[in-house]
Amino acid sequence: MKPVDDKTERRKTEHIRICLNEDVEGKNITTGLEKYRFKHNALPEIDFKEINLGTSFLSKQVKAPFLISSMTGGTKVARNINQRLALLAESHGWAIGVGSMRAAIEEESLADTFEVRKYAPTIPVLANLGAVQFNYGYGTEECMRAVEMIEADALILHLNSLQEVFQPEGDTNFGNLLTKIEEIAAKLPVPVGVKEVGMGINGLSAKKLMDSGVKFIDIAGAGGTSWIQVEKFRANEPIRNLAADAFSDWGNPTAECLEEVKQYRNQIEIIASGGMKNGVEAAKALALGANMVGFGRSLLKPAVDSDVTLLEVQMDRIEFELRTAMFGIGADSIEQLVNTRNLYKIS
Amino acid sequence: MKPVDDKTERRKTEHIRICLNEDVEGKNITTGLEKYRFKHNALPEIDFKEINLGTSFLSKQVKAPFLISSMTGGTKVARNINQRLALLAESHGWAIGVGSMRAAIEEESLADTFEVRKYAPTIPVLANLGAVQFNYGYGTEECMRAVEMIEADALILHLNSLQEVFQPEGDTNFGNLLTKIEEIAAKLPVPVGVKEVGMGINGLSAKKLMDSGVKFIDIAGAGGTSWIQVEKFRANEPIRNLAADAFSDWGNPTAECLEEVKQYRNQIEIIASGGMKNGVEAAKALALGANMVGFGRSLLKPAVDSDVTLLEVQMDRIEFELRTAMFGIGADSIEQLVNTRNLYKIS
Amino acid sequence: MKPVDDKTERRKTEHIRICLNEDVEGKNITTGLEKYRFKHNALPEIDFKEINLGTSFLSKQVKAPFLISSMTGGTKVARNINQRLALLAESHGWAIGVGSMRAAIEEESLADTFEVRKYAPTIPVLANLGAVQFNYGYGTEECMRAVEMIEADALILHLNSLQEVFQPEGDTNFGNLLTKIEEIAAKLPVPVGVKEVGMGINGLSAKKLMDSGVKFIDIAGAGGTSWIQVEKFRANEPIRNLAADAFSDWGNPTAECLEEVKQYRNQIEIIASGGMKNGVEAAKALALGANMVGFGRSLLKPAVDSDVTLLEVQMDRIEFELRTAMFGIGADSIEQLVNTRNLYKIS
Amino acid sequence: MKPVDDKTERRKTEHIRICLNEDVEGKNITTGLEKYRFKHNALPEIDFKEINLGTSFLSKQVKAPFLISSMTGGTKVARNINQRLALLAESHGWAIGVGSMRAAIEEESLADTFEVRKYAPTIPVLANLGAVQFNYGYGTEECMRAVEMIEADALILHLNSLQEVFQPEGDTNFGNLLTKIEEIAAKLPVPVGVKEVGMGINGLSAKKLMDSGVKFIDIAGAGGTSWIQVEKFRANEPIRNLAADAFSDWGNPTAECLEEVKQYRNQIEIIASGGMKNGVEAAKALALGANMVGFGRSLLKPAVDSDVTLLEVQMDRIEFELRTAMFGIGADSIEQLVNTRNLYKIS
Ligand SMILES: Cc1cc2nc3c(=O)[nH]c(=O)nc-3n(C[C@H](O)[C@H](O)[C@H](O)COP(=O)(O)O)c2cc1C
Ligand SMILES: Cc1cc2nc3c(=O)[nH]c(=O)nc-3n(C[C@H](O)[C@H](O)[C@H](O)COP(=O)(O)O)c2cc1C
Ligand SMILES: Cc1cc2nc3c(=O)[nH]c(=O)nc-3n(C[C@H](O)[C@H](O)[C@H](O)COP(=O)(O)O)c2cc1C
Ligand SMILES: Cc1cc2nc3c(=O)[nH]c(=O)nc-3n(C[C@H](O)[C@H](O)[C@H](O)COP(=O)(O)O)c2cc1C
Repeated sequence: MKPVDDKTERRKTEHIRICLNEDVEGKNITTGLEKYRFKHNALPEIDFKEINLGTSFLSKQVKAPFLISSMTGGTKVARNINQRLALLAESHGWAIGVGSMRAAIEEESLADTFEVRKYAPTIPVLANLGAVQFNYGYGTEECMRAVEMIEADALILHLNSLQEVFQPEGDTNFGNLLTKIEEIAAKLPVPVGVKEVGMGINGLSAKKLMDSGVKFIDIAGAGGTSWIQVEKFRANEPIRNLAADAFSDWGNPTAECLEEVKQYRNQIEIIASGGMKNGVEAAKALALGANMVGFGRSLLKPAVDSDVTLLEVQMDRIEFELRTAMFGIGADSIEQLVNTRNLYKIS
Repeated sequence: MKPVDDKTERRKTEHIRICLNEDVEGKNITTGLEKYRFKHNALPEIDFKEINLGTSFLSKQVKAPFLISSMTGGTKVARNINQRLALLAESHGWAIGVGSMRAAIEEESLADTFEVRKYAPTIPVLANLGAVQFNYGYGTEECMRAVEMIEADALILHLNSLQEVFQPEGDTNFGNLLTKIEEIAAKLPVPVGVKEVGMGINGLSAKKLMDSGVKFIDIAGAGGTSWIQVEKFRANEPIRNLAADAFSDWGNPTAECLEEVKQYRNQIEIIASGGMKNGVEAAKALALGANMVGFGRSLLKPAVDSDVTLLEVQMDRIEFELRTAMFGIGADSIEQLVNTRNLYKIS
Repeated sequence: MKPVDDKTERRKTEHIRICLNEDVEGKNITTGLEKYRFKHNALPEIDFKEINLGTSFLSKQVKAPFLISSMTGGTKVARNINQRLALLAESHGWAIGVGSMRAAIEEESLADTFEVRKYAPTIPVLANLGAVQFNYGYGTEECMRAVEMIEADALILHLNSLQEVFQPEGDTNFGNLLTKIEEIAAKLPVPVGVKEVGMGINGLSAKKLMDSGVKFIDIAGAGGTSWIQVEKFRANEPIRNLAADAFSDWGNPTAECLEEVKQYRNQIEIIASGGMKNGVEAAKALALGANMVGFGRSLLKPAVDSDVTLLEVQMDRIEFELRTAMFGIGADSIEQLVNTRNLYKIS
Repeated sequence: MKPVDDKTERRKTEHIRICLNEDVEGKNITTGLEKYRFKHNALPEIDFKEINLGTSFLSKQVKAPFLISSMTGGTKVARNINQRLALLAESHGWAIGVGSMRAAIEEESLADTFEVRKYAPTIPVLANLGAVQFNYGYGTEECMRAVEMIEADALILHLNSLQEVFQPEGDTNFGNLLTKIEEIAAKLPVPVGVKEVGMGINGLSAKKLMDSGVKFIDIAGAGGTSWIQVEKFRANEPIRNLAADAFSDWGNPTAECLEEVKQYRNQIEIIASGGMKNGVEAAKALALGANMVGFGRSLLKPAVDSDVTLLEVQMDRIEFELRTAMFGIGADSIEQLVNTRNLYKIS
């Protein structure tokens, strides 16, 4: 177990700065959602005002099928971001995740930078840790502390193999993680989920995780933020820097993950994320089988602003877009959207 | 029933100004007609001069299978546009529609801005109302008044769900419209048709409308004017403004609608419109099963000019192009064009 | 029969000027040959120096399977062009065609502008007339005069329906031409062929022509010079000028014509032309079933220069490219090239 | 047998200069590897640090499945390049080839410019000659001298038909080479391999070569350096210069060669090369059936620099990329990579 120090804090700050200012998307790869189109239903036969976005996630009711993806914590800036995101997630009835809590596990004084429950008393809140830490000393105890620290409804473990490789001195021993995840999932009193960070969990991995007792999966597919590209902007070591380009189109596109994972929809809750920018994409993801849709980087920028109006507008816009897409196909509930036959692949 | 006021007049004027000056087409979406190509017949075996564009529409003979789509009315500028369009439609033997007549229903003094019959005594003329008004107090009476006001041969009802959503204070209750359309179609002494305004009526909706007694359908497909983009230029409210982009590729492309609707050709008259700019596209639409082809925005610009020469040239050009396309495949009547096997999809 | 006058001379001169200086190719349409690729044979097992381009055409031996397409005549400039083309066709052992001879039929003093036999005593020479003239007074007599005037080995009739339509006062009665072509083909002592001028003769038309006694076909497909675009640059009439754009992608691409016509290869000689620019394209056309490959506009520019070096270089280049392509797949005779299995469509 | 003179030396120097400074890639043709993508495995279940790149080639162990392609020799500059490449190939445990040794066969004083064994005592070293020389006086003796001159583990013969054609005064008699290759392969005490130089050896040629006793094949496919384009920059003769463009998309793309050759994997060793620039492409080539991956021009530039740091960085980068790609799919040995099912063609 490596000590969390200034370096970690500097890294987290840099991550945010890079994500806000640099082009950190993959090249020649997209979410694949643009290949889908809804059949417009000229006769929706519903009242726009009656469209209901409500659904349930982790046994709680949410007012919209949306999640603010795990992003940050551990620094002062992060604390403010988390607070703003939590306040608006609560007012909108969305779910929320926090960034990796390792910093706070190792340095308790940082716990309050992950504080979201105070501002978000009723919505689903996800604690977050890197699964690879199970090969570096972490276990049930650390997981429990993370969950308790923020009174989380669940713990989501992230799988980020290629990010660790591109991160100088990253933790790259991913051996035997499945067994360890299984153990944690069995022991923890709250549901345990697993996510990627932008390379995508495909059907095969989802199946293995499901069989290990994981209760929900966030596919976090390719086509949005690429952590290899993020690390590239930090790399001052030539090899990793040059190598990042060769991986610019690496990953399982979000839509492809959904196509593969949809079949497990009845056994496990599925969060679609990775490159989500608007409510039409969200509608497509839901029609492709997701229970919830997660937004990462596209909500980071407005959340940095001390005035929350911008963030509120973006969240309202996403809801309006989903609602309008549902109106366009004549679906007035999330259930109807999920069961629509009006989504097709453009040939 | 909301009163028609200055606001409505301002809106209509703005619509025209925006349609003339801004880029109001969807993005990443086309009519799909460009994917079709005619097989050139080097041996047409006909005389170009004998090619006959005549056909019938709503039991009247027209000299060409063309319709000027429902566009305007309600303002002084609109009156002049309608007059010019009517004069030339009559001289060319095309059919014509007017814009939504709600303004004149609610304020009778505006009736003369929809006056086209005076200038177009012999051709098919279509009255126009929004179907959604049936949920806001309209019924048979209003429909009859619209028809009588302009001595129309038929009434065409428009379905414009997404335009209403993007229009601040739009009428967005589209519940139970089908039953109400069925009622009107049964009661009105003239044929009732239904159109979209640029998002497209696909096979399923066409079938439902046909089964409800609708006599003709104007598919008004995507790939041309997008009313969401038009409203975007009016929006001073941030959410709708931002959301318009997510819907820039929404809709059923004109060619796809035709592919689906063609099967009902023997039971119902089909107007192909949405993005039509020339007579070759029109020829393709006819070969894909349409009875008539409608031109909206592409005829608006020349119709604004007080000198009608420009409008005449455009209409002559469209006819010349259709005629030449027919010559190119060796068809000398609309019937032969409709039954051609010379249209194929480019692979 | 309309008199040939100054107008005709002016038109011919304009055609040449436009073809040399303007963009007269179609848009969004190509020959389709670029979709084919040869499989490189790393082990050709032949000697490059032994590759033989010789073949036969119209019962004469030619040193290469190449034809200079029918292009010009009737003016002083044309005379010089024809002379240069003839001299080099003879020295290279290619076949040659002259432009439409109508001018010289109607005004005998123009006969010498079509003179090619004097400079090309041994190669196949093609006389040329528009088939549509059979509906404007022409018959066997005019055809015989054309053939005799230049001691031609054959007569090739051009079908140019859309060019006539776009040419102000064009001859646009293409009725019943097939019967008339059949009659001429039966009566003439030399073989009669038929060509398009850039819109392509497809399988169906080829079949009909073959069944009418036509002995060879020049498909003259789309993807190269578009006569509609050429006429556009002459049009001072707004309608034709505007309409030309709608036809910018009209026509049967050269490769598609070949795919359809190949089946008749044993009954009729096939010339592939339309957009040919180099010997690799020629090799593909031969592998797709052509007996000869025709070059039009791409040889016009060098032929205008009074110094023939440029023209010679182009012709040498084309031969070198064909030879090299054959070396690349290990074919040392035209027969082997025609029977190769090394051409495939890129997927 | 033509004497090697100043001309040859000048040519070799020019080749290097052109390859370093000009755009010598084909146009409208790629390796085809970009059409493949790996399925990311979020759960690799391996330790990055344990990934082993070692494999065997020509019965020797190599530390990575990489070969520095045959490139140069015969001049002073070449000597330095060869020395640097050899030193780093040895330190990295890669295989290495030298450029065509004809110069040294004909002028023994040039032998030391091909010296690599001194700097690379343990790795596989390939001697190189043009197969076409067997039609110009070469035979077993010259082959043996080449092998002995550099204590090579094997001899690789290059097939470069189109390069010879585009090279003024090239050796273009490729007749009966197969029999002669068979003879050499039978007589030589070391394994004989065959390679192209960038146009690709496809399945059919590979089969013939295998049946003639060839022990390994370097497909050297299209998509990277095109020797026709290289020669174009040297051509001062107009015909070859102009003709080069027509061949800019000629050749068998690297990925297509692999798809065809993979089936012989158990009988013959396969080197994938042609356009290789990074370790992800290398991983794809290995997953498509190659035993080794060759890098040509992409290693030339860093090898020209007298400071070897740049070259080392590139080689390290390529290894890091391969390792990371393997981590991304969860393969910790070359054998596992070769047998992966995680490579798919993007549709
Ligand atoms: C600034 C930033 C920090 C992040 N930190 C974490 C993290 O600590 N733990 C985690 O699981 N994912 C983290 N992520 C990944 C996101 O949760 C998400 O999976 C990824 O960014 C892809 O979604 P996107 O394309 O919407 O950004 C982070 C993302 C961003 C932009
Ligand atoms: C300025 C303008 C006003 C319109 N007003 C109406 C209307 O009042 N009623 C209606 O049914 N459609 C209306 N439309 C829609 C057209 O009838 C047509 O369906 C649509 O513009 C798509 O065709 P286009 O791409 O050829 O413009 C209007 C279109 C324009 C351009
Ligand atoms: C300047 C010029 C004049 C032509 N005149 C004739 C003609 O008189 N008769 C004819 O059959 N074709 C004529 N053609 C058409 C050519 O024979 C050929 O079919 C056509 O140009 C397509 O080939 P290309 O793309 O190689 O130019 C002419 C072409 C050009 C460029
Ligand atoms: C400067 C240079 C010189 C070359 N000389 C030879 C040679 O002498 N013998 C040979 O077999 N290939 C030679 N090649 C071809 C390479 O071995 C290789 O097959 C080709 O360049 C394609 O690989 P690339 O795209 O990685 O460059 C040479 C390549 C380069 C760039």
